[in-house]
Amino acid sequence: MALKHADPGQVIDLSPYGSRLSAAQSIALFKSEDLEVMRLVLMAGKAMPSHHVAGEITIQCIEGSVEVAAEDATHVLRPGHLLYLSGRAPHALLALEDASVLVTVALKRIPPAAA
Amino acid sequence: MALKHADPGQVIDLSPYGSRLSAAQSIALFKSEDLEVMRLVLMAGKAMPSHHVAGEITIQCIEGSVEVAAEDATHVLRPGHLLYLSGRAPHALLALEDASVLVTVALKRIPPAAA
Repeated sequence: MALKHADPGQVIDLSPYGSRLSAAQSIALFKSEDLEVMRLVLMAGKAMPSHHVAGEITIQCIEGSVEVAAEDATHVLRPGHLLYLSGRAPHALLALEDASVLVTVALKRIPPAAA
Repeated sequence: MALKHADPGQVIDLSPYGSRLSAAQSIALFKSEDLEVMRLVLMAGKAMPSHHVAGEITIQCIEGSVEVAAEDATHVLRPGHLLYLSGRAPHALLALEDASVLVTVALKRIPPAAA
């Protein structure tokens, strides 16, 4: 995954890649104290196996379509659709068409040890 | 702000309101353990005065355009643009055109008191 992190106060363009999609790569937009935001590119038929993260996440389809298996159900996300998932919820993705999706992860920080 | 909370694993349609925008209202999509997500509707000329929240936020323009003053700069967000702001960063919004924007807030939880 290419790294090209945005700074706070920087505008990130999430317009559909369109004809440039097939040459695009998944990108980590930023990872900071509370949030990690990435834009995943998945070509049709490509899958991301089931996995989970500690915090809640949202998955927003920017273009194409993806199938998300999570929370005991399967959802098809098309452009403009957003799905939010509980922390620790296993989820798997499958691109039904060439797709890019925005994933926002709430990071869980370990509280400082008691003094 | 109308309340109509989504559940985990529920697909939320964030397609532009288009011709329905003038009749739309700001809506809290969900607020759970780690994240609060809302879709704000601001008619042209309407402002949201400077304020701040504890956690980091992202502001994503769905339709129209908004001016965001934050982090010592002013940004114009158009459809597909996303801005992320540090926690506690004061920010103000002004709709340049009738607009709807998605706001994602990382909630700060007070760690449980040490035993």
